[in-house]
Formats: sequence, C-alpha cells, structure tokens
Amino acid sequence: VIGAKCSRCGADSSADVVLSVCSKCGGALLFGYDFVGISSVVPKSALEGRKDSFWKFVELLPVGSAEDIVSLGEAYTPVLEFSDARFTGGKSVFVKDDGRLPTGTFKARGLSVAVSRLRELGVRHVAVPSAGNAAGAVAAYAARAGLRASVFMPRDVPTANLKECVFLGADVYLVDGLIGDAAGIVKRLKDAVGWFDLSTSKQPYRFEGYKAISFELAEQFGWDLPENIVFPTGGGEGIVGLWKGFHELMELGWIKRVPRLVMVQSSGCAPLVKAFNYGQSEVKELWSHAETVAAGLRVPMPYASYLVLRALRETDGLAVAVDDVDIIVAMRAFFKGGVYACPEAAATLAAYRRLLDDRVLDADERSLLYVTGTALKYFDVMDINRTRIPVLRKDAASLSDVVA
Amino acid sequence: VIGAKCSRCGADSSADVVLSVCSKCGGALLFGYDFVGISSVVPKSALEGRKDSFWKFVELLPVGSAEDIVSLGEAYTPVLEFSDARFTGGKSVFVKDDGRLPTGTFKARGLSVAVSRLRELGVRHVAVPSAGNAAGAVAAYAARAGLRASVFMPRDVPTANLKECVFLGADVYLVDGLIGDAAGIVKRLKDAVGWFDLSTSKQPYRFEGYKAISFELAEQFGWDLPENIVFPTGGGEGIVGLWKGFHELMELGWIKRVPRLVMVQSSGCAPLVKAFNYGQSEVKELWSHAETVAAGLRVPMPYASYLVLRALRETDGLAVAVDDVDIIVAMRAFFKGGVYACPEAAATLAAYRRLLDDRVLDADERSLLYVTGTALKYFDVMDINRTRIPVLRKDAASLSDVVA
Repeated sequence: VIGAKCSRCGADSSADVVLSVCSKCGGALLFGYDFVGISSVVPKSALEGRKDSFWKFVELLPVGSAEDIVSLGEAYTPVLEFSDARFTGGKSVFVKDDGRLPTGTFKARGLSVAVSRLRELGVRHVAVPSAGNAAGAVAAYAARAGLRASVFMPRDVPTANLKECVFLGADVYLVDGLIGDAAGIVKRLKDAVGWFDLSTSKQPYRFEGYKAISFELAEQFGWDLPENIVFPTGGGEGIVGLWKGFHELMELGWIKRVPRLVMVQSSGCAPLVKAFNYGQSEVKELWSHAETVAAGLRVPMPYASYLVLRALRETDGLAVAVDDVDIIVAMRAFFKGGVYACPEAAATLAAYRRLLDDRVLDADERSLLYVTGTALKYFDVMDINRTRIPVLRKDAASLSDVVA
Repeated sequence: VIGAKCSRCGADSSADVVLSVCSKCGGALLFGYDFVGISSVVPKSALEGRKDSFWKFVELLPVGSAEDIVSLGEAYTPVLEFSDARFTGGKSVFVKDDGRLPTGTFKARGLSVAVSRLRELGVRHVAVPSAGNAAGAVAAYAARAGLRASVFMPRDVPTANLKECVFLGADVYLVDGLIGDAAGIVKRLKDAVGWFDLSTSKQPYRFEGYKAISFELAEQFGWDLPENIVFPTGGGEGIVGLWKGFHELMELGWIKRVPRLVMVQSSGCAPLVKAFNYGQSEVKELWSHAETVAAGLRVPMPYASYLVLRALRETDGLAVAVDDVDIIVAMRAFFKGGVYACPEAAATLAAYRRLLDDRVLDADERSLLYVTGTALKYFDVMDINRTRIPVLRKDAASLSDVVA
C-alpha cells in the first residue's frame, strides 16, 4: 500500500494511520498500491500456488503483516454452472455462492480485512450501523479478534441477524428507524464513546475485502472474467470493490478486459437504480417508505453514492430494480437447483431473467449471478404449509397410512 | 475400486452394480481399492496441486467417471486454531467447520458421493430416513442431479430441516416416531415404490464421503494428523468413514500414525457410548425415551453398530456422553470465538473439556473438534431476551435515549 486517495477531491492520506472519510471533503477514501513493485515480487503464477482464500492476495490488501490477519476461514467460495431452463431458458449461467463464508454472507470479506487492519492499528472498539448482515460479520470478526463491537440495526431487522449478534457477544442496539438513522447515532456518539465507525463507505478497509472478489473470480475463471456480473446492492460497497478490483487487475496486467457490472435493487428501495437510470451523478434524496423482503437492500440513502454510480458507468454497467414477488419466485428457483440464496441474492436471478427477456443481455454471453448470502438466515419468515405434509403412522404400510 | 466386502461376514460383491447391505448376512458393505495401483498413478504430491475439494481424491472414491460427479461446491472446510481459555484452559485446540459445506452440514460429503454414484448407475429415485440433516443433503443433491427424493423425518424434526426439504423440492413425509420408525417405512415400501434406500450404513456410498474427511484433514495437517479427533455421533457413519480413511492412508503410506477417535453422544441418547464402555460388540437394545436438543444425535438403535464400535476400538478410541445443558454452554463458547456450531457439534467441546478435566486427554496433544454443522439451522429454538435489547430513538443523543 502506498497511501489512500479521496475518490472525490483527490486529496492524499497516509495509509499508516486509522482512516475514515476524507478530512477535506468527506469523500470515500480508496487505497492505492505499487502495482509495478507487486507484480515483480508476486507474479500471478505464485499466487495460484497459495491456499485458496482471498487472503492469498495479501500483498494487495491493506494489512502490514500477514500475522495480523483475523480469519474465520475465508476459503474460496464455489462457482457453480447451471444449464437448467428454470434459470436461463436453456443457456447456462454461473452462480457464485458466498453463503458459504463465515457468518453466511459476503460481508465476511469486508469485515475480515477491516477488523484485521484496525486491530493492527490499535483500535479496540468498533461500531457499525447495519441492515443486518454487516452487523453479524462485525460481531463475529470482533469476537475472533478480541475487540469490542457495538452494532446498531433497524428494530425490524431479520431475527437471525439480531440473534447472531447477541450470541457472538456484541453490544446490540436496535433503532426505531432505518440504517441511515443508525448511522447517524454511530456518527454522533463516535467521539463521546470512542469507537471506530465501520459504516459502509465511511472507511477504506471494507472496500478492499470486496475488491478481492475480483481477484478470486479472475483466478477461478482462468483470468478471463465472465462478460456480466450481476450483483445485489444496498449500500454499494460490493460494486465499488468489484470495480476497484477490475482496475487493479488491469494495472497488474493480469486480465485483458473488464466485465460489465449489473447492479440489482428491490423496487421497494432502489435509489441507486433510479439515480443511475436518470443519469444523475449521485443519490440526492432519501428513498421514502423503503420496504422490501430483502432487508439488506433497504438502504434509502447510501453514503458516497457518487462512487457507486461512477463504478457502474465505468464498467458500461446496468441497473435494474425487481419486485419482491419476483424475488420470492427466484428464491424457489435457486432452491430447486440446490442453492440456498437469500432474497438479496435471488434478486440477481429475477433481474437476469428480465434482462434476457428484454434482450438487454445475451444468453450466449457468460453471466455470473452473485449469491451474497445464505437463505438460512431467512427461514423464520419463509413459511411452509404444514397441513400439506403427511404425518405417517410409525408402522405405516403405505404412503397414505397417516395418523388421524 | 476393486469391489465391495461385507464388514461382518467378509463376502465379496461387485462394485459395478447398485449395492445395499450384504445379501448373505445384512452386514454393512465397504468398498476396497487397489492402493498399490493408485499410489503409483497419483502420488500425494499430484493431489496437492488439485483444487481443494474432497473430490480431488476421485481415484479413491467410488465413481466411474469424474464427469458424473454431482457437486454443489464441496470446498475444503477451514481448520481454525483457538487458544482461548474459554475453549481449553490455556492450550490450543483445532476446530474444523463443516457448517460451510452445501446444506450447512457434513452430510453433504456422504450424499454428494452417494448421489453421484447412484445416478451414474441409473437410479432415478432415492429415499432416506433422517433425523434431519441427511434429509436436507439428500434433497439438495437430488435437486442438483435431477433425481426424485423422498425423505422421512420424525414429526418433531427441527423446523429448518423440514423447510429446506420442502424448498428443495423433495417429497417430504413426517413420521409419528423416531428415525428407526422412519427407516422401517423406507425399508417396507422399498420394493413397492421402487426407490433406493439411502439409510445410514445400509449402503456403501455414504461412508466414502466421510472417509474423504481423513484425506482432507491429512493434507491440511501436512500428512501428520492431530492425536485426537473429537466427533459427534448419531448413526455412526462419520466414525466409520474416518476410520476407513485412516486405514487407507496407512495402506497408501501417506500417513504414519492413526489418530484416536473420540465419539461424543448426548446423555439423552447414548447407545453407542454405553455399548462401547460396557465392552459390548454391538448395540443390543433400543435406547428408550431418546431425547436431546441435538436432534442429529437422536438415533436410539444405529444400524451396523458393531462396525462403529470396531472402528472406535481399532483407533484406541474413547466414547463420552454429555448433558444437554453442557451442550448449550458449549454452543455459547463457540459463538464467542466466532464459530456457529450446531448442538451436535458443540457436544465435542463439552466432551473435550470433560476429558481434559478428568485427565483422560492431555492438553499438550493436538486435538481437533469436528463441527459437523451450522447453528443457523437451530436459530428458531435459540431464544434471546428481547426485552434486554435497548431500542434507541432515531435521533438518540446517547445510548440511554430509548423509545418509551
């Protein structure tokens, strides 16, 4: 790492101190690296020989020493190919399943990096506003690292997120509002309590974990990435991370072409999709009455939205909002292929189908649907009709031998 | 594969046909391999270069062609080291987290192998009696493979297991009894319905997936396995698989020493522990009033128990039963380390602590606690006290600024 630069005003910061947003303009900071130096020391062939975890790219991540890594076992997550008509109308599509990471979501990537570096820099207490999954990841990595964590979530957060944070030993607070209100509380109390604010896009560390998705994917696809990557988006850190990763891979000369990013939101809360499709440079107003089954997408006013929109435009990207009813249908389709996709992730399939129908995407191109988390955290709100499941007598002699 | 042999009477069977139990004595069948041939074709150094999945050992698994593998992405699961006093009183212990496999449990291993081979042999419909997690894995791999699956579970099975089977598209039946009653139904209706009976130990395929745990662990530990492997046990297939794997690794000359297996059951259902500690060669009577929070351990009369007990004795093993209350405490301890361990898995920590206290195990030896599945499937029965979680006003100016 050679330093950090503001993505808005271009001001430079040292990477050796604890960083939040740009001290001049409040913009999001991004780390820069010495790519010429790195590619001479670690050619990509050397990396391929290391253990399959995004931490294999440690020279391209902002930790000072590999010994300071806080890990819960971030193995490469699988890429599966599906040729089932339920997915694609006949052509094949790729699915990457990040439900297999620690805490069951892709948030593990950003928080493994952030907690590692912050502990290395001497931070002892972190706080995060979250729609749910980031809070779980903060709580888990803080538990592993021996840091104190305070998490702030909307009071109607999915039960699994609330429970995991309690079990993991975090200081848990609910907020009578949405994630933006929680973010306000974390910001207001920062100096009084003395915690580090781990909010989305308000520090440069989490981006780096999502950046490493690009590296992982590039290796998994033999350094020739799929034409389209379909990614669900709440705060937008994943999109920014992927875009940053593509650029770094180009700088390193490890890939020859940048994929198109397809950002997906729920039509119940789609501020980034709206701003993108209206040609705006940032989200200017809070999305009112934000409501969707995909709790992670309920971010009515993302911080540093200008950066998310820039990332999307620079990859010749697309932005789509899908209805909750289509998200539910897509969850079922994923299950029928053996994949436990959370609603946020299922939104990618709903969007992909629409884009194929509308002939915006071509089924002959390689497309990857990014499953950001496991459906298991949503089981309490996914009902089944118990009355339709037969209860057999213990000595049943046929499948209709049910108890009265 | 050079054939299958009965573990009781020694009769040989061909591996080229669909196999269940020994046609002569009903014993469990085990596959045999040409180890001399295999080790000359694929030295372990060649295997190390393959992608980290237990399928890298395909020459030592009973599929005819690698193209027939039914996979949902069975990456190596992480081994984490914990030196926290909450775990060990100061010394370190290893934890392997199989909650990260497809369907969230180690059952994915056995069922990935079994469904692959059975589909290769032309089977179109599989059935399984299960305490829960095996049913989920059968449903998932059958969905991926395009097979029909019928699953039979006790009517008080954990809700998550019931839901996943429904979502995955299996034919789901509850049984007014326990897993043994479900097994009876699958057996009785086998010929009438025409399904293949995938019951624990009643076919040689599932063992092979658990066998591969030994290979995976051996590579992860540099071919020098930990002295003790602590494993929770319901039907016992995992223990048999591990033991078989150790033997094969010795035959191949890839390891020099076999670890001790420590089998853990719940004191609410501990037929194997009882038989082992009474010096019996098999479980002779059904454990009555089987009841435990660890649903997967509720197997009152395991099939082929003689083989589980033999496997344990041949590794100079141990058998321990722990109380549910200690299981719950151990779940909390795992969470405080960032690991989501299901009750079955948490039982290993409860047992390990007891064996250290009793000076049966030595903390200076390397011990590995096997986390067989994720706690996420148990969240609906893991309560928190919501009244103790503060709900802050959205404009809160302090952490005591709660809503009325």
